[in-house]
Amino acid sequence: MAINIQNILSDNAKSMRRSAIRDLLSVANRPEVISFAGGFPNPSTFPVEDLKVIMQEVLEAESTSALQYGPTEGNNKLREILAQRYRDQGLDITMHNILITTSSQQAIDLTSRIFINPGDTIVCGLPSYLGALQSFWSYQGQPIGIPKDEELEVVVKTLISSGKKPKFIYTIPDFQNPSGITMNLEQRKMVLEIAKKYDLLVIEDSPYREIRFEGEAQPLMYSMDNERVMLFGTISKTMLPGFRIGWIIAPVEIIDRLVVAKQSADLCTPVFDQAVVARYFEKGLFEKNLGKTIDLYRNKRNHMLNCFEKYMPKGVTWTKPEGGLFLFVTLPQEYDTRELFDVAIKENVAFVIGEAFHCDGSGKNTMRINFSFMDEQKTEEGVKRLSKAIERMFEKSTK
Amino acid sequence: MAINIQNILSDNAKSMRRSAIRDLLSVANRPEVISFAGGFPNPSTFPVEDLKVIMQEVLEAESTSALQYGPTEGNNKLREILAQRYRDQGLDITMHNILITTSSQQAIDLTSRIFINPGDTIVCGLPSYLGALQSFWSYQGQPIGIPKDEELEVVVKTLISSGKKPKFIYTIPDFQNPSGITMNLEQRKMVLEIAKKYDLLVIEDSPYREIRFEGEAQPLMYSMDNERVMLFGTISKTMLPGFRIGWIIAPVEIIDRLVVAKQSADLCTPVFDQAVVARYFEKGLFEKNLGKTIDLYRNKRNHMLNCFEKYMPKGVTWTKPEGGLFLFVTLPQEYDTRELFDVAIKENVAFVIGEAFHCDGSGKNTMRINFSFMDEQKTEEGVKRLSKAIERMFEKSTK
Repeated sequence: MAINIQNILSDNAKSMRRSAIRDLLSVANRPEVISFAGGFPNPSTFPVEDLKVIMQEVLEAESTSALQYGPTEGNNKLREILAQRYRDQGLDITMHNILITTSSQQAIDLTSRIFINPGDTIVCGLPSYLGALQSFWSYQGQPIGIPKDEELEVVVKTLISSGKKPKFIYTIPDFQNPSGITMNLEQRKMVLEIAKKYDLLVIEDSPYREIRFEGEAQPLMYSMDNERVMLFGTISKTMLPGFRIGWIIAPVEIIDRLVVAKQSADLCTPVFDQAVVARYFEKGLFEKNLGKTIDLYRNKRNHMLNCFEKYMPKGVTWTKPEGGLFLFVTLPQEYDTRELFDVAIKENVAFVIGEAFHCDGSGKNTMRINFSFMDEQKTEEGVKRLSKAIERMFEKSTK
Repeated sequence: MAINIQNILSDNAKSMRRSAIRDLLSVANRPEVISFAGGFPNPSTFPVEDLKVIMQEVLEAESTSALQYGPTEGNNKLREILAQRYRDQGLDITMHNILITTSSQQAIDLTSRIFINPGDTIVCGLPSYLGALQSFWSYQGQPIGIPKDEELEVVVKTLISSGKKPKFIYTIPDFQNPSGITMNLEQRKMVLEIAKKYDLLVIEDSPYREIRFEGEAQPLMYSMDNERVMLFGTISKTMLPGFRIGWIIAPVEIIDRLVVAKQSADLCTPVFDQAVVARYFEKGLFEKNLGKTIDLYRNKRNHMLNCFEKYMPKGVTWTKPEGGLFLFVTLPQEYDTRELFDVAIKENVAFVIGEAFHCDGSGKNTMRINFSFMDEQKTEEGVKRLSKAIERMFEKSTK
């Protein structure tokens, strides 16, 4: 008789939640569906020709180390390069403040692992990045969403006075996933002041920061407080996601704990991929290609916004992000995008329901729209179909 | 004031143990030291020229998918290829029984994550693979070592009657790390019978199986019971470790749980690296190169054994492994290899103390010797130095 898995699962396993996005995407993957659901970079931004050259160079010049096991902390050249790049943005760090991780998802996971006990609270946005929520849940953490920024302090105080002091405040200050919104300087200062006042860690998850179409960059929170901020970065949106390279910048004593956690998680980040990325930065290719990516995505955002203006029925609103990959769309309060999803999928268009990003189950009238992946023609057709689906839902409810 | 990390660490973080090997290796890394300490494959076995061709092919033919995010389960072509290879070894599986992991260390980690609650016991060898012990500890699991194979049942029964039923039996049946020993058919049957009798899962961690110098391969335990065995594999020793590619073969309902755990751990295994490995298998290069690797390592083992015969003082014994990367060396009971390590490092030779592989702190008179990495000349010189260090320790104690 086969073993009964249910009987032996850990409490962690029981508290894990399957990604709603993942299940939705399996429907959205049919070829006839125009999908705004994924968070995929556009493959035309992948630096294929540069990689052809660099990979041959790595195999020619450093195969002995690049194909071998590597240090848990990561490729030292890459750590040096990243340290310099962040020093240029005002961070007071050295390479010893940097751990290379197997994607920024692992950055979230290792951080959760070393800090979260079952029942611990984590303060985050409403909405917030689903992958982070999943990681918190997988360690039986309890994410608590802040409805409005100005309510952060009251939420923190309430948690503390009920004996549920949060382990950290999780933020995505630049072009947040899913909302596309960027925190201004005042908001950043406020978060750091509250963190200091109540002695809390702050996570600054920053996968989209470099993809700014317009307006001025706000300072990194880590540059404003290098004692209680952990900064997560990645090449997934700015170079390519298929290598799974990310990093954590943090005070050295936190890096030290994360290294021990990473030893048992996967020993080291893919060594060859790190060597390629280090050379890519070193040759100045990152900057060269990023400019083109930003131009492409700016055009795509403009086109998406134009299509929204042109086709969306009255009552629908959406964000106008200054960067990143996503629009966030809001329907009138009484509508549920889960219901819309079923209508939309019949029209062969897909999105992600906003509820998936709300740890408290709210946000039922919202959805996330990706604009980086689809070409212009399909984007227009997709927005048409989506508008039609929304109109149909509106009509049905007024009958 | 900086945040006090100690105050906010999770219980998991507090139960993590830093790798003793890692700290020893930092001393062993001085260029004048001949190190038998690491578990590194020989870089001359890395298929550099084949990789040059394959990487260009992947970039030419499938860059759009190979540089993008990929499915959490892994590259389907690679899963198909692995499924076929294991069917050829008698396993009754399909690709749906396979999850590609970011190294076999992650296989151990995800398995620990979905099964181990704080305080749970895991039955393992004395000695056993340190990286597995670290993973068990990091989830507050309690590895219990079996002194002799024939004592497995009594240990399991004792644990069960004390309310500490083990979550699984962790084994490395082929060329065990660190002992180099292989389980024969009777031992495999016994483990499976006990597992069945007491309704336990069995982990068959199998990173070295393909590296057999002589003698006949024993059947995989998974081929003898496909309802309660989880099999872990990797390319780290047979192709290269710098990609971090491993896999888990398990009943589908376990794979399903592992996939959810992997979503929050790192989303997917490096996609480009998987595409390269799939083509490498597809072109028959794995078999072609493996033969050369086996020949090289057989010579290295023979040479190492010859040097041991020639130089080791009386009273020292060692295993004669039929495959793998390691010898396991035993000194008379009264000697401590931690003490020897300090003497040896002065002689500029390094090894790993056996105690590190014993979850109960025993094995103080043992050490692990790697024979895959060093060239012949250095091996002879290293064994000479090591013998000298041992003689010195023997003499000191008889004074």
